[in-house]
Order: sequence, then C-alpha cells, then structure tokens
Amino acid sequence: MLATPTEAGRWPEKNFKLTIEYDGSNYCGWQRQPNQSSIQGALEDVLQRMTRESIALHGSGRTDAGVHALGQTAHFICGTRLSPVDLQKGMNRLLPGDIAVRSCQAVPLDFHARFSSRWKQYRYRICNQPVKQAVGRQYAWQIYRPLDVAAMDQGTRHLVGQHDFKSFESSGSPRAHTVRNVMEASWQRKNDHLEFDIRADGFLRYMVRNMVGTLVAVGMGKVEANAIPVLLNAADRRLAPATAPPHGLFLVHVQY
Amino acid sequence: MLATPTEAGRWPEKNFKLTIEYDGSNYCGWQRQPNQSSIQGALEDVLQRMTRESIALHGSGRTDAGVHALGQTAHFICGTRLSPVDLQKGMNRLLPGDIAVRSCQAVPLDFHARFSSRWKQYRYRICNQPVKQAVGRQYAWQIYRPLDVAAMDQGTRHLVGQHDFKSFESSGSPRAHTVRNVMEASWQRKNDHLEFDIRADGFLRYMVRNMVGTLVAVGMGKVEANAIPVLLNAADRRLAPATAPPHGLFLVHVQY
Repeated sequence: MLATPTEAGRWPEKNFKLTIEYDGSNYCGWQRQPNQSSIQGALEDVLQRMTRESIALHGSGRTDAGVHALGQTAHFICGTRLSPVDLQKGMNRLLPGDIAVRSCQAVPLDFHARFSSRWKQYRYRICNQPVKQAVGRQYAWQIYRPLDVAAMDQGTRHLVGQHDFKSFESSGSPRAHTVRNVMEASWQRKNDHLEFDIRADGFLRYMVRNMVGTLVAVGMGKVEANAIPVLLNAADRRLAPATAPPHGLFLVHVQY
Repeated sequence: MLATPTEAGRWPEKNFKLTIEYDGSNYCGWQRQPNQSSIQGALEDVLQRMTRESIALHGSGRTDAGVHALGQTAHFICGTRLSPVDLQKGMNRLLPGDIAVRSCQAVPLDFHARFSSRWKQYRYRICNQPVKQAVGRQYAWQIYRPLDVAAMDQGTRHLVGQHDFKSFESSGSPRAHTVRNVMEASWQRKNDHLEFDIRADGFLRYMVRNMVGTLVAVGMGKVEANAIPVLLNAADRRLAPATAPPHGLFLVHVQY
C-alpha cells in the first residue's frame, strides 16, 4: 500500500507499528470474527473511535482462541494528527484491561507486520506439580505427573533446523509450503514450571502446541525421543500425539 | 466442639484441616454471603455434595472481595468414611478452576483454624512499570510512576513491632483491640514487580492494604517516611492515605 496524496483537510497517511500484550483467555483469537470478541476487533474498534476512520489492522499472524501474547505486532496506515504516544495512551485508556499496547512507533510506509518479519519467538508454559493450581492457572498447562525433562530436551533437539513440519500442522488447515527453519528450541525449569522457548522463521497452525503435545508424551515415557525424526519424516499429522491446550502458549516476540 | 458418640450407622466425627489456594477475582470474598459467590460457600457446597451432610467450614479469617490466597486454612468437623486424600481429590475435581485444595489433613478435634493460629503472612504485589500490563494484571496493582523503594523500606521499619494499628484499620469496622505484633515486614524487587511481605500475630481489616497505600504514598514522595510513627500514634484512619486495591493482595501462609 502506498501513501495517497494529501486531500484538502486530510493529514498525510502514516504507518504505525504496534507491539501488543494480551491475555487471550476471553477472546476467540487474534482474528476478527462475526459476533465474537477478538483482539484485532477490539483494537480496530478503539482506533476507529479515536481517529473516526475505519482502520484495517494487519497482525504479524493469527493467534488461536485462548493463546496469549507478550509481543504480538501489527501495523495500520492512517492519516491522523495524533502522535504515536497519543495513540498508545488513548488506546490503553479505551481498551479493556486484558489488552495493552506496549509500544506504538511510526514506521516506513512499506513496513508490513506479517511480510517484513524475520522470525518469531513463542513460549509454552507447563505447571508440573502434583497438586491442583488455582493462581496463574490461566497461564500454564498443568501436568500432575512428573515429566522427564532430559528426555524432552533430547526430543527437542530433533526439531531444530530446517524440516518439513507437516506432521505438526493443524490437520484442518493444510498449507502448500510446510518447510520451516527452527533456529532455537529448548526447555527451562523455573521452580514448578517448565518453559519451552522456540524461535523460527515461521510457524504452521498449531505447530508449537503439537510439538509440546508430542514432547510431553516423550516426558511421560509414552513416546521415545528418537521417534521424533520418524514422525517428522512421515509428514502426517495423524501420527503425532494430542495438541497441547492453548492457555499455556505465548507469542513472545516478532523480529524485523 | 467435642466428638459425639457414634450413633448407629454413623462414622465417628473427625476434624479436617484444609490448605486452600484461590484466585479471588470472581468472588465476594472468603465469607458466605446471600446470593453471591464466596470461597467459603463454594467449598461448603462441594463438601455437602460429597458427604451428604451440611458442613460448617471455619476459615482462619476472612479475605475481602478480590483478595487471593496461596495458603488460606480452614477446618470442618464431619463424620465421614472418606480419607483426607479422598476428600482432597474429590473437592479438587468438583471445585471450579480458581479454587484448589492444596492439602487436607486429619487434625485433633480441638484444632481451630482461627483460634489455634499463631501468625499469618500476607504478600502485596505491585507492578511498577510505565506501560500498561495485560498478562498477570489480576495479580498486581500497577503503578506507572517509579517508586522510591529505599524510602518505602524506611517507612516500613516503623511498622515492625507491637503497635496500635487503629490508623490502618478499615474505618467501617472498629474493633476493641487494635494492638498487633508485626514480626516482619519488607519489600523486595523482582524485575518489574515489588513484593511486600508482612508477618504478624493478627491483622485488622484492610490493615495490609492501608499500609501499602501509605507506603506507596511514601514511595511517590507524597508522604515522608518519618510521618508513619505520627500516623500510628494518631490512631485515626482518616489521616492515612488511600487503601491499595484488593487484587495485589495474597494470604500466603497461616502458622499453627
């Protein structure tokens, strides 16, 4: 999209990049859906109230229902006299408590939140303790049985690098190109929690949650760590164990 | 209350101590209230379903609407063939996700969750960062302006020891005895968060939240740290700054 010439009484179009944190618990996901609460919809509605223009917000990608973000990014083009700081302050005032604009910057008109991105980082949190957790339950998948993190680490190493991740894609949404480059993936124990951090040039739908589901099966001794290359080579989702629930997943960062 | 003789077909009465974690966001507080969701009510209802008896649950004390707990305690006396482990498992299955029974133990019949307690520990969490927070917002009071923690520490030292805490009591609920012994109170910085930990032989209503409200005023430079002894001596709530909101407060531990 290019800047249009300034008409009488209109401000020149500018491109704004947002970094957005959200608690996805009460949303149908990033993408606007009819008659449902979405993150994109909440942001677009607030921008429209502030600018009195219909704004199309382009995210770096979708996050599914219940998935959270610490650093989702998006851009929108708009002719407004409001500064990035004004926009951020106004949005944060008008948005509900579970969506926060962490930064708003003016960027070149050819910046695109999706197409300009180089890599993304996701985090998956597991609460691995034997007794039910109430505080913070909306931010981690609780697994009561102890997990063998060494085996999960071993399994994870097979996922790093350039692979066809078709086996870890949502079965309902096939894409033509399913090869992705996973630059880093590792587990860290933090008290009762396990955190899986993964960085890749792109992610297929459900890819992280399917990986975590498989790695948890490895941690429980249901699947062997060295079965993961076999799964990858099969390129068939039906062979992989169950998908991890959405509420443990965070989109942490999008790099440009 | 004493054990009653075993009637035909009844199990002898036993006393059970519960340790309870809860996210208080969606409750009117610990205490059962007509037509409102309370923690006590949720627990009593589940116990009644499991034991088919009307159970009176006695907490270590009330927590106000929106306050959380990591280690609230309570006891109930009941003639049941269920073991403490059965009771804990059954309760955790039937309770909503925001209430968890962390432990259930058989205790002597004269144990009383409120009257047997020696001290309690509360924690108050502040998120001290300049940009709106969405993830975890229900577990911390966000303060955008930087706080002077050294001054808050200095003010806190005046609160440790045996004092008349009438100035820090809820104005609506005067008690005859307002002298309490604060054994420990301190602030700790954890990344963007400040945590206030306080241990005392007893707490007046709103005491922690009123202390935090005052100490935050000290951290903002609105009140001097050495004004705190003056406030204490005045024994008049109307002189102290505003009460901190409930959602930063956690009942951490009750010691017997």
